Amino acid sequence: MANVAKKVSWSGLDLAEEPMGEVTPLLNGTGGTVLPPPRQFTHSSFLRIGRLSTVDLDDDDDVRELEVDVLRPFPNEIPHNEKLLSLKYESLDYDNSENQLFLEEERRINHTAQTVEIKRWIICAMIGILTGLVACFIDIVVENLARLKYQVVKDNIDKFTETGGLSFSLLLWATMNASFVMVGSIIVAFIEPVAAGSGIPQIKCYLNGVKIPHVVRLKTLVVKVCGVILSVVGGLAVGKEGPMIHSGAIIAAGISQGRSTSLKKDFKIFEYFRRDTEKRDFVSAGAAAGVSAAFGAPVGGVLFSLEEGASFWNQFLTWRIFFASMISTFTLNSVLSVYNGNPWDLSSPGLINFGRFDTEKMGYTIQEIPIFIFMGVVGGILGAMFNALNCCLTMFRIRYIHRPCLQVVEAMLVGAVTATVGFVMIYCSRDCQPLQGNTVAHPLQLFCADGEYNSMATTFFNTPEKSVVSLFHDPPGSYNPMTLGMFTLMYFFLACWTYGLTVSAGVFIPSLLIGAAWGRLFGIALSLMTGGAIWADPGKYALMGAAAQLGGIVRMTLSLTVIMMEATGSVTYGFPIMLVLMTAKIVGDYFAEGLYDMHIQLQSIPFLHWEAPVTSHSLTAREVMSTPVTCLRRVEKVGTIVDMLSDTASNHNGFPVVESNPDTTQVAGLRGLVLRSQLIVLLKHKVFVERASLIQRRLKLKDFRDAYPRFPPIQSIHVSQDERECMMDLTEFMNPSPYTVPQEASLPRVFKLFRALGLRHLVVVDNRNEVSSWQWVLDREME
Amino acid sequence: MANVAKKVSWSGLDLAEEPMGEVTPLLNGTGGTVLPPPRQFTHSSFLRIGRLSTVDLDDDDDVRELEVDVLRPFPNEIPHNEKLLSLKYESLDYDNSENQLFLEEERRINHTAQTVEIKRWIICAMIGILTGLVACFIDIVVENLARLKYQVVKDNIDKFTETGGLSFSLLLWATMNASFVMVGSIIVAFIEPVAAGSGIPQIKCYLNGVKIPHVVRLKTLVVKVCGVILSVVGGLAVGKEGPMIHSGAIIAAGISQGRSTSLKKDFKIFEYFRRDTEKRDFVSAGAAAGVSAAFGAPVGGVLFSLEEGASFWNQFLTWRIFFASMISTFTLNSVLSVYNGNPWDLSSPGLINFGRFDTEKMGYTIQEIPIFIFMGVVGGILGAMFNALNCCLTMFRIRYIHRPCLQVVEAMLVGAVTATVGFVMIYCSRDCQPLQGNTVAHPLQLFCADGEYNSMATTFFNTPEKSVVSLFHDPPGSYNPMTLGMFTLMYFFLACWTYGLTVSAGVFIPSLLIGAAWGRLFGIALSLMTGGAIWADPGKYALMGAAAQLGGIVRMTLSLTVIMMEATGSVTYGFPIMLVLMTAKIVGDYFAEGLYDMHIQLQSIPFLHWEAPVTSHSLTAREVMSTPVTCLRRVEKVGTIVDMLSDTASNHNGFPVVESNPDTTQVAGLRGLVLRSQLIVLLKHKVFVERASLIQRRLKLKDFRDAYPRFPPIQSIHVSQDERECMMDLTEFMNPSPYTVPQEASLPRVFKLFRALGLRHLVVVDNRNEVSSWQWVLDREME
Repeated sequence: MANVAKKVSWSGLDLAEEPMGEVTPLLNGTGGTVLPPPRQFTHSSFLRIGRLSTVDLDDDDDVRELEVDVLRPFPNEIPHNEKLLSLKYESLDYDNSENQLFLEEERRINHTAQTVEIKRWIICAMIGILTGLVACFIDIVVENLARLKYQVVKDNIDKFTETGGLSFSLLLWATMNASFVMVGSIIVAFIEPVAAGSGIPQIKCYLNGVKIPHVVRLKTLVVKVCGVILSVVGGLAVGKEGPMIHSGAIIAAGISQGRSTSLKKDFKIFEYFRRDTEKRDFVSAGAAAGVSAAFGAPVGGVLFSLEEGASFWNQFLTWRIFFASMISTFTLNSVLSVYNGNPWDLSSPGLINFGRFDTEKMGYTIQEIPIFIFMGVVGGILGAMFNALNCCLTMFRIRYIHRPCLQVVEAMLVGAVTATVGFVMIYCSRDCQPLQGNTVAHPLQLFCADGEYNSMATTFFNTPEKSVVSLFHDPPGSYNPMTLGMFTLMYFFLACWTYGLTVSAGVFIPSLLIGAAWGRLFGIALSLMTGGAIWADPGKYALMGAAAQLGGIVRMTLSLTVIMMEATGSVTYGFPIMLVLMTAKIVGDYFAEGLYDMHIQLQSIPFLHWEAPVTSHSLTAREVMSTPVTCLRRVEKVGTIVDMLSDTASNHNGFPVVESNPDTTQVAGLRGLVLRSQLIVLLKHKVFVERASLIQRRLKLKDFRDAYPRFPPIQSIHVSQDERECMMDLTEFMNPSPYTVPQEASLPRVFKLFRALGLRHLVVVDNRNEVSSWQWVLDREME
Repeated sequence: MANVAKKVSWSGLDLAEEPMGEVTPLLNGTGGTVLPPPRQFTHSSFLRIGRLSTVDLDDDDDVRELEVDVLRPFPNEIPHNEKLLSLKYESLDYDNSENQLFLEEERRINHTAQTVEIKRWIICAMIGILTGLVACFIDIVVENLARLKYQVVKDNIDKFTETGGLSFSLLLWATMNASFVMVGSIIVAFIEPVAAGSGIPQIKCYLNGVKIPHVVRLKTLVVKVCGVILSVVGGLAVGKEGPMIHSGAIIAAGISQGRSTSLKKDFKIFEYFRRDTEKRDFVSAGAAAGVSAAFGAPVGGVLFSLEEGASFWNQFLTWRIFFASMISTFTLNSVLSVYNGNPWDLSSPGLINFGRFDTEKMGYTIQEIPIFIFMGVVGGILGAMFNALNCCLTMFRIRYIHRPCLQVVEAMLVGAVTATVGFVMIYCSRDCQPLQGNTVAHPLQLFCADGEYNSMATTFFNTPEKSVVSLFHDPPGSYNPMTLGMFTLMYFFLACWTYGLTVSAGVFIPSLLIGAAWGRLFGIALSLMTGGAIWADPGKYALMGAAAQLGGIVRMTLSLTVIMMEATGSVTYGFPIMLVLMTAKIVGDYFAEGLYDMHIQLQSIPFLHWEAPVTSHSLTAREVMSTPVTCLRRVEKVGTIVDMLSDTASNHNGFPVVESNPDTTQVAGLRGLVLRSQLIVLLKHKVFVERASLIQRRLKLKDFRDAYPRFPPIQSIHVSQDERECMMDLTEFMNPSPYTVPQEASLPRVFKLFRALGLRHLVVVDNRNEVSSWQWVLDREME
């Protein structure tokens, strides 16, 4: 077996069998052992775990390390091969470094555990309030700007309809769109590219444990909010809901730290929460608050956070998330109620409201179940098509449109084309509907008779949110099937083209709109086929179509069901929506991945999925560790540490600490794990045992927290030649009980540890007498 | 410091420092080392982790083991001190034993992973269908029997109202109740005591990882279903919803194993799922399906399972749970719709339906928020009172009413008293209401004028489900405040007395009923105070009161919000319900524990909470390990194994396996972990290296699965004297990569591992050179 041959040739492991004298020469200046390179790792399925490394200690207790991340970001790298994982992402570390300082603080804080808990609740309340306010701001600004824009265009069209010269109206419309989009695109492309898109994939990654640079910065929030306003007003086929999730997450990350690194303002509060573990929890609350504000769906928000992010379900955390969600929708509701002039009404729980379905009249019966399932299938197929098309487009963009100016031009082009398509479709449509009885925001008469309006214009000449609600609730007969068919087709391609543009925008609403359009069409067809049966209400089918299409594109089930339920304000349709979403997911998964997962993969992000890849069962920890890695002694020379940190070859973020007892010839095994960030802080504060004093400076946990999360690079720290000769005692700072796995642990086992505990580093240790276990593995495989 | 002194006196650890020659004599015949007993463990906060044990290996690589459980059940033991943990419970092991057999199968199965996944979905569908059918069965039988009973009593009352002699009616009613209850109580007390109560605490424990004996057996299901029917028909203040959750869980456990051990019927299917890991997942699906069938709340069901049980959130698992929930409510809905004669209607999604609230008319405004919060406070206080009273009662029962006949007598007494109280209250009530306009199931005229009925009778003379709905929906003015006040008071004490009886019954509905009664009273008071303001609808406040009371008693928030939302069929009240539940929880937690948690604690179950107790921060793994524990060599004498398993002192379920190399004098460290159950199966199948053949029999994973979960006790396995001399090679069967922690790991860290990975055993290992790290711990504590 080739496999066995490879392993046998990897003689590095045999080192442990050699007498100590022969091992020591391999110890190089950096304090670590450089082994002959191990066999190349070729199982692509495992590449998802990220870059790997081997540590081999200079003693008979073998220690190796698995690391999920890589240190130095290469922000300008463009991944040309989507099969590889990019090196520009770092992992978050959800494992507390339980060093002496930490434990001391924990013991001290036990007496004030109540205070910490109350602070957490306060932060969640603040997250909810601020997220709600941001949502209000977006909503109010978008509404006013959009009204203004449509008024101008409408007046212009009205003016030119009779005199002729509608091409001027088109030009006006297209220019207005393109200019809004241009500004929106410029701020994204030039100021903060990570604010592009809905931000949901990025937040998914964050909650999964991958830190995308700049993803939770204040600047990103500002760009995101302005960007989404501009792109919605610019008439693109986008929604303002997805970005709310990202906004909520940024707000949460900011508030929970009690300071803004960008603004260099430290409020000196919430310092206890300055670490990945706590920050992640608040970010999930923020994301939930965002969903809650966007759809008026507090429970849906909690489920979204859990479905997309959390791997460890903690009841207390869930309650806090729920609380933040509640506050967020309540804030939005109150403010918008006041803004709309009926302050006690509480009728606007979210940015989008699907409106009230008359469930008494429009219930469903058991016969409709197969129809819903069929709609789910259609949604799944259409969703997969959407994703496949968008995938090709995104690959094209990654290869050819990666310069900011090109991105801006593309966005402007899409803006102008959207307006043109809308205009042409409205122009060509002869679908006139009587004006009375309908509540149309911007009725466009065009060539219709007086008292009538162009029905195509209600879908195109409106913000997508309003169009969705019209499709759900306009009475039967409001739309011509031809109109709906054309609209679905055009909007499908427009939305597909739009997603992935360098603008800040979401895909929820366009998906709903496409689905609502074909769903309504489907309802009309059913109604015709059944001779206008009472149950064949086009509005109900529009809702199901919307669910199917959205489910087919984003592939969420549980959270999306609840979001849709909460957005419709009724649980009557809960069961059919579930059915539709589940069918759409199953069918969609058969053809293509979900949109968010696809984008995560296209960006080569080392995302950890829910379960270990099936092919990993035949691998063990031993086979996926890699080399070279350096490790430190418990009391180490400062020069060694600096050299090690500066060495680009050993760009790890955690280093095993081993015992170095000068008295015995036998050097002992793993003593702990020290993080790069800790070493950097120690170096910065010059925590050495200086020759003169022999006493090491003490450092507080606060010093580490102040530096979090932007630890300076090693290059920025100056260490003099004298200081290089000093020693540093790591005992107090290292984590004395890092998680370890034996070499023989299977990969799914290792995966489970990484996933369940949110680890960044995992030390692979070996027993002393290596031959027997090693032999045993070989034996088993040769059988 | 006393702490330090204690540690130093625990000299057992110093063994590792002694030369090998001196350690060996300590090795006794059972293959393990017996150490001097360690210091008594006194931190009561940690007792929750369960019984503890120390393993000390006969070599310089120190291995210790933490175990969450204890082997031998003592079913007759009655815990007299609720501060201690009972020894009668075993833990579930959610960690797969990744031995060679397992890994081989996993590799083989990779090609058929799809099949396994499809089987999982099929099982979930079956769980849903069966749970739905069981719910239908219960509902239909209860409805018919109750109708019959009330008809008989009503006729009797009607007969004697005019002639006098109502005491005979009372006697009839009380006797009927008592007899139903007697039968229900007898089957529970004598056949299957674990079927008592709602079963929710038991399922919580199961999902938490504690196996309560008999909890998921077929016999329990039968007793549960019959018991709940009899106790509801017996007129007790109970509901049939809680038991549905237990029933669903049992159904899930049964189906997923593809056999019934009780019926000795093996369908030879789903053999892959015969282990704790898989079974737990299905049990959570079953519990969710139960909630879903009980309340028509599929999403609520999923959340219930997650909130109460799962610690590791897995997306695929969640979807399957969701699917089972969906199927369950749908089955119930279809069957009941057919039963009720309108087969296409789908109007009965759950056993209880709160009915349709006219949300258009009965919305809420922002001014009502403080009122809701106040109601939450009231609910929290009343709930805490309920729990505190019930706690005293339960302690009394544990001490004095633990004989089955006494339990039956008590249940009968409660049944008779319930009827009497109802009768007296109806008799004394002069609250007559006009009959028309109201839909009363069993209108009791009594002393009212013709065309009127006794309003008190609608609450007492009805199943509690119907009473709840009446309180929600009867038009304002249907109830006299006096009636409601008296009812609340009496029912509160009755329900409190009833919960914990030896009958199968739930507390959801009585809680809702109490809450609805005082909520409605509150609504009436508000209406009076505000001069009959339109928003002061008593039905709405009845709903809020019900939520507050239930929340105050059971202390669930997220899942309960969704359950209530789904049961009312509207999300309009979602936000106020949340507020009320959250307030009730916060206020209630201040005074007393939740009812389920309280009962878990009173039963001395070693339940693992969400977070490590705060006092545990100052403890390390070293301090909570205990002794003595035996461990095995990789190739061990059969006699040694049998002796070890038979030894009641070493009643552990997992034994570390250490290397025993006869060639070297140095004996090496931990090689794996072998489970008691595995050893038993090996012994049963005589898997020894016999002298004659020198070849060990091979065993398949199937042999282990067939024995799951009722592994025979060691006493039932006969091993001859010759066989005792044989050797057993454990290499193939032990888990070569058990999870380990270093001695210095803090207790919260150990807790996190146990909780996140669902472990049963955790091996505590030490590095070789023990002195330095040992010394270091002492140093730190003396500072």
